[in-house]
This record gives sequence, C-alpha cells and structure tokens, in this order.
Amino acid sequence: MEKLKPRTLSGFMELLPAPQTQMERMMAILRETYELYGFTPLDTPLLESAEILLAKGGGESEKQIYRFQKGDSDLALRFDLTVPLAKYVALHAGELSFPFRRYQIGKVYRGERAQRGRFREFYQADIDIIGDGKLDILNEAEIPSIIYTIFRRLGLTRFVIRVNNRKLLNGFYALLGLTEKSGDIMRTVDKLDKIGADKVRVILLEDCGLAQEQADEILRFIAIKGTNAEVLEKLADWQGKNEVFDLGLSELTAVVKYLGAFGVPEENFAVDLTIARGLDYYTGTVYETTLLDHPEIGSVCSGGRYDSLAEYYTDRQLPGVGISIGLTRLFYVLGEQGMLNPNLPTAPADCLLLPMTEDVSAAVRLATELRKAGIRTQIYSEQKKFKAKMSYADKLGIPYVVFLGEDEIAQGVCSVKNLRTGEQVSLPAEGAAKLIREGISAMSDDTVIIEK
Amino acid sequence: MEKLKPRTLSGFMELLPAPQTQMERMMAILRETYELYGFTPLDTPLLESAEILLAKGGGESEKQIYRFQKGDSDLALRFDLTVPLAKYVALHAGELSFPFRRYQIGKVYRGERAQRGRFREFYQADIDIIGDGKLDILNEAEIPSIIYTIFRRLGLTRFVIRVNNRKLLNGFYALLGLTEKSGDIMRTVDKLDKIGADKVRVILLEDCGLAQEQADEILRFIAIKGTNAEVLEKLADWQGKNEVFDLGLSELTAVVKYLGAFGVPEENFAVDLTIARGLDYYTGTVYETTLLDHPEIGSVCSGGRYDSLAEYYTDRQLPGVGISIGLTRLFYVLGEQGMLNPNLPTAPADCLLLPMTEDVSAAVRLATELRKAGIRTQIYSEQKKFKAKMSYADKLGIPYVVFLGEDEIAQGVCSVKNLRTGEQVSLPAEGAAKLIREGISAMSDDTVIIEK
Repeated sequence: MEKLKPRTLSGFMELLPAPQTQMERMMAILRETYELYGFTPLDTPLLESAEILLAKGGGESEKQIYRFQKGDSDLALRFDLTVPLAKYVALHAGELSFPFRRYQIGKVYRGERAQRGRFREFYQADIDIIGDGKLDILNEAEIPSIIYTIFRRLGLTRFVIRVNNRKLLNGFYALLGLTEKSGDIMRTVDKLDKIGADKVRVILLEDCGLAQEQADEILRFIAIKGTNAEVLEKLADWQGKNEVFDLGLSELTAVVKYLGAFGVPEENFAVDLTIARGLDYYTGTVYETTLLDHPEIGSVCSGGRYDSLAEYYTDRQLPGVGISIGLTRLFYVLGEQGMLNPNLPTAPADCLLLPMTEDVSAAVRLATELRKAGIRTQIYSEQKKFKAKMSYADKLGIPYVVFLGEDEIAQGVCSVKNLRTGEQVSLPAEGAAKLIREGISAMSDDTVIIEK
Repeated sequence: MEKLKPRTLSGFMELLPAPQTQMERMMAILRETYELYGFTPLDTPLLESAEILLAKGGGESEKQIYRFQKGDSDLALRFDLTVPLAKYVALHAGELSFPFRRYQIGKVYRGERAQRGRFREFYQADIDIIGDGKLDILNEAEIPSIIYTIFRRLGLTRFVIRVNNRKLLNGFYALLGLTEKSGDIMRTVDKLDKIGADKVRVILLEDCGLAQEQADEILRFIAIKGTNAEVLEKLADWQGKNEVFDLGLSELTAVVKYLGAFGVPEENFAVDLTIARGLDYYTGTVYETTLLDHPEIGSVCSGGRYDSLAEYYTDRQLPGVGISIGLTRLFYVLGEQGMLNPNLPTAPADCLLLPMTEDVSAAVRLATELRKAGIRTQIYSEQKKFKAKMSYADKLGIPYVVFLGEDEIAQGVCSVKNLRTGEQVSLPAEGAAKLIREGISAMSDDTVIIEK
C-alpha cells in the first residue's frame, strides 16, 4: 500500500510523552491554584458562529481568524477565551451568581505567519472575576496575587508582576490637556522598553503632535522609579488636580497595599507607569509579568480591569478583571531556555511489574493490589529478553521494577528493585506499596521549572 | 449600541458551572484511573491536514468532517482520536517505547444532523496500548478491567462489558464456507439487539444470500447463552476444525480468565457472541458496554484489538488494543436519566470569607492562611447587604461562611458557620482550616453517578 508521510501542521505543538507530562503538571498546578482561590472551571466550544466571535469587529483577530462555511453556517475557531466568556456570561447571566469567578484553560487559534516559537494553536489559561454592575477593588489585587502563587509553585522566583492603572494615566493626560490623544500616547509609551525613551519622544512629537513641554512632562512621569512606596509618594505631586487621576491613584494605592497583605513580596511586584496594555478595553488596573532573566520574551502573563465585558451582546453592565497566561508559548520558551526541570519524574508508572511465570494471574492480582494502594502500576507481559524489559523501564524513567516468580508467589512476597539505587528487597504486596509510595513521594517535591 | 443576541451553536455542549464541575469530576476520575494503569497523557492538535485525517478515505467520517481551506492549506477538525494517534505513533515511532500506552481525553467534531442528544463537538476519552510487531493477549483483558474500575469509581454497578473475539467469528464463518461473506454477516448479526433474530435471518437469507442451513447454524451460534464458563464450554463443540477459530477461542478463554484475576466480577462482564463491532479494523477481542437499566442508549464504551494502527502512514506493524468512552453523550444521557448525583458538592469554594471591617487586610491574610492549608477560599468583598452575601454562598452551595470582624481580629480568631447545620464556632485560623477540611472530606465521598 502507498504510504502517506505522517506530519503535524506547522505552528501546532505536539509533544512527546515526557514533555507532555511536564506540560500536564503545569496545567494541574494552574487548575489547583485557581480552585484554591474559588474559581470555577468553564469549558466553552472551540467553534462559534463567526458573527458572535467577531461582534467587536476589525483588528488583528479578524485577519488571523480560522473562519469557514459548513452548510449554511459561518463558523470560526475562537481566537481567545475572552470573547467566548463574554458570550457565555451574556447568555447565561440569569443563571449565574455574581461576582462570577471562572477559569478556563483551553486552546485558541490564530493563523499567524508560522515562525519559530509562534503558534497557531495554543493554550491560554485565563481567570476572570465578573461583577454585576460593580466590582470591588480588592479583586484587582487578588488577581496578580494568584499569578504570584502559581509562578512560585511552578518553581519561579525571578519574575516581576508590573502593575499600573489606566485611570491614573487618563487623569494625567487630562491634566496635560491631552485626553483626545491619550490612546495614541499610551500605545506609544507602551513601546518604551522596546524602542527607548528617545524614540518614544520622537513619536510623541512627530506622530502624536505633542508640544515639547507635553512630551517632556510625559517622559518625566514615566521615568518615575523607586520602591512602590516611593513611586506612590511621587505620584502624590499631581494629586488634587483631576478626579480621574485621584481615583486611579487611590486604586493603585489599594492594590499595592492588598498585594502586600496577600503575601506577595515587593521583589515580585512593581508599580510601573510605562505599561498601559495596548487595548482600549482596559479601564483600571493593568498587569504585565516579566521574567527577570529573560526580558526579551516580553510579558508572559497580562491582563487588567475592564468596565464592559459583554457590551456587544447585552445592556447589562458587567465589569471585570482578568489575566491570561499564554501557556504554550511559555512552555516553549522555558524549554528553549533549559528551564524545564529534567529531574521532574515524567514516567507513566511508578513501577513496572515483570511476571516471571507463564500464567500471569498472580501478577495481575498483585498489580490490582498495588493499584488499590495508589501505586501507578504497569504489567509488562510481552515475550522479551530480561534485558529488554529492564531497558524499557529505564527508557521511560520508571523508578521501580517488581519481579514476581514462582519462589515469590510461594512465599507470598514480591521483589522490588529501586532502579536509581539498585537496591532490591523482597516483601509482601502491602510493604511493596508502602516502599514505592515513600520513594515516589520523596521524588515529587521537584518543581516543573528550575532557575539557573 | 446595537446588541447581537448571544448564542451557542446547536450540537455544542456548553454547561453551567455546577454541571461543568460534575463533568470535570468525571474527567478527573478517568485521568486518575488511566494513570493508575500506567497510561501516559497525550494531546494532539484539534486541526490536522485533511489529507492526513482522511488517509483511510471514504465512509461516514468524510461526509461529516469539518473541512476547510486556510490559505493554501486543506485543513480539517479531527473526527476521532484514533487517526491522530495513528499519525502520532507513525511520526514519532523512533522516539517512543513500546508497548506504548497512552490516554487522551479530547474534543472531536462530526457535522451530524443536529438532534437531541447528538453532539457535533464532543469529548472522547480513549486509551490504547500499541505494540511493536506483537502485543500480548493480557492487554486485551486489562483494557476492559480499566473500564470496570472507572465505572465503579463513577458510581455505576449495573453495567455489563460484553466481550467477543473476531477470530472466533471469522473461524466460525470459515467453517461454514462463508469467509467471503463474513463481513456482511457480522454487520448483520451486530444488529440482533435492535431488529431481533427473525429479521437477522431474513437479511442473511435475502441480502447475504445464505442457505437455510447456514443461516440456522449462525443463529444457533449467536444464541449461545449462559455463564462465561458455559459459553466457552459450548464453543468447544467447534474446536479442532479451524485454526483461526481455535486461536480465537483460546484468546477469549485467556481474556475471561484474566478479567477474573483483575477482579472484575462475573456480573460485570459477559462473553456475548452477537457483538462484532461493525468495523473491519478490529481483528481480535472486541468490547461493548451497556447500562443494564438503559439498554436503549446502546454501547457507552466500545473498542477492541486491531492489527494495524497506522498502515496508511508506515510499513511498521503496530498492533494494538483500545477502547473509547463517548464522554459528552454519556454525560448528557446520565443527566437526562437523573443519574447525576445532586448531592455531589459543586461549589467553587469550600468557604466564603466575609470581611466585616472597612480595611480588609486582616481578611486577606486569613484567606492566605486558609489557602495555604488547602482550603478553597473566596473572599467576598462586594458592598452588599448581609442577606445578599449569605444568599450568594447559599446559591453556589458553598458549605462554610467565615466572618472576620473587629472583635474576632482582636481575639485572633474567626467565626466559622456551617451552612448545612447552622452551627457556628469561633476559633483561630488553623482550627478553622481543620474544621472545614474535615467537613469537606466527609462530604466528598459521594460518587458522580447514582443508580436508582
């Protein structure tokens, strides 16, 4: 028969078992942590009506979207998890309790130009808290504290969650008489890290049409540095002149205070007046997260506060705050940087059980006992040489091999060999389970990510 | 602004938070059990090249597939998890260790005519064991024993895994001189449950062109009933006349023996000579699983042994055995039948923390302590009346409310109210965590499914 060369589409991540297990571990940590903070899991369709997904219209999303006809239907694959959330909340608002806290870890699709490290199918891990009409400021501090907890659990310490407030920026631009231009200015200032202050100044003067003094004032403002307390103190200079600015400053002050109460140390979060998030969507606190040793990656986790989640679908005022981790890209970058812990156990089983008798019923019963005791057990019953069997365990990184021959069966024991130490002991099923459980437990303290 | 009516595509399941939590619990049980048996998780793209997915060509899949052009690419959404597995194994064979045991729980797409209980996007939960050239018969008994374990863990007892063997059938038809027609005959016999013996006979005679005696012999064969031992004994009547039959009988005998060793009771599995699975793909043991009280649903979990997983992509001989649960449909049917346990806790949090002070820093610190102790905690900081806050906890089914006012803060305690019993006690954070943990633990023994 003519064979078709097997291939996976370019821009679509498909992992081998060991890295897949690392990825699963990351996702499990995300799920557990989100749930610890009272978020409920959500799962919306990958496919939606194109009209629904593109309600907001225009922009990058429309160009990159996977859209097609099926029968009479104009369909599209979701390009983020926010639009499906907006649809979900608008559709089911009467059946939900607000604040509605949900997490969703799911694949999204963007037909970007394929290049190294860019994905067309990738996981986003989103959390959002949606209020009905109002939403307390505390939520804007809790969201980055969750990210802090997750990153620490993954094994990262060298990261900074950068926080700013759009009201503060809008108020500041209003003070300068630049309200009309604040969108353009924020998009320009957002590029500071990439292009530097001089080029930002040029764009502000030439493209945005600002006066010298206005540009200077903006550059002075965004150059404010120091501890969070120092930055907040310097911002007080502008206080009392504009209501929106004052509101933004009080929100930012509250977020800084509560981030501390949530146990996030100063070294992991910083007020940073240069970030704005390029989207008009955000209206309050905004976040970006950078890895200190890899600033070139850009933000690995971003989000913020918005006033209208679902204005395209409903009149109901649904303010919220959310943040998104680009999981596939993060995982790829961590791999590229050698930051995925090679010692993290990725074996599919805790022990490989080798029956040494023709009738394997006794081995089957032993496997059942071990599994009942929570030991992930694989019976290896293929007719292979002993060496091949041991090499199989070794290749998969299975830490224990259990032998069961006539002698062991007669004595009511099995032989357990620790492949890392070479140590071998004979003991009854219960003891074997205990030995393996303790050994595995000692190994699984390792984190997914290691910093060098 | 003009509003667009929010909607979800017909045939696409989108659950509210409480049922979603039940579904997540089902999936967690599947994952845990698969892993207990040494299966590694896999995650392949939803989108593949249409050419790859349709390598096998023709059939129902081609008509129902979601297929479209994007740029120069002819793409399609996967319609099952088997074809992507075949591609994966053919593509990565050199990097995998065999037997390769993988599970995958993922969405697949079929553009079926939309009707109640039929889904166009639905989860399949697949396990497969793939050998390199050979695969031991033990695997054919282990696969249904995993399904047994899963169903029991979900809370089901009234189900039967029906087992047959294609070699036994092929050998039997060869004995009757009907090898050429065995495919047609098996497809006909497969309908026995639906159309009855008389109609099967008519089809065998008229459509398949069998002689009276041949049809009678087939009907006698598939009418064999009794305990598994009795069925196997009756089958011995045909032994010694055809090699393929004898091989099938010895395989079936081994599967029955080892299913017992795996701890599957006789009431949950039965040799059933009428099932064949309509696909030519299967070559040995085949499975179907029915709920005893709901035979009208048909098989909720099917699969079998095959000789060539990936013959369209590679010359390498990759025999395997696998089984698939149609999870979305099963979940839907369980809901329709009222079999989803309403007492299963679906709250997104174990406790709702109500700060009774303006500065909520102390509440934030308490929440952090509770979370460190593993208690899923939500802080409710919205400005609402007390009654509204309690009603929020009640609606979400959150079992505990924790109050923290000035008095409690001064005394270093918090007040914990059990909403089910109304009982309220004041105690320090550590004690509160212990109290809540024990209460939750007592509640979570419930199974997802209840039988009436």
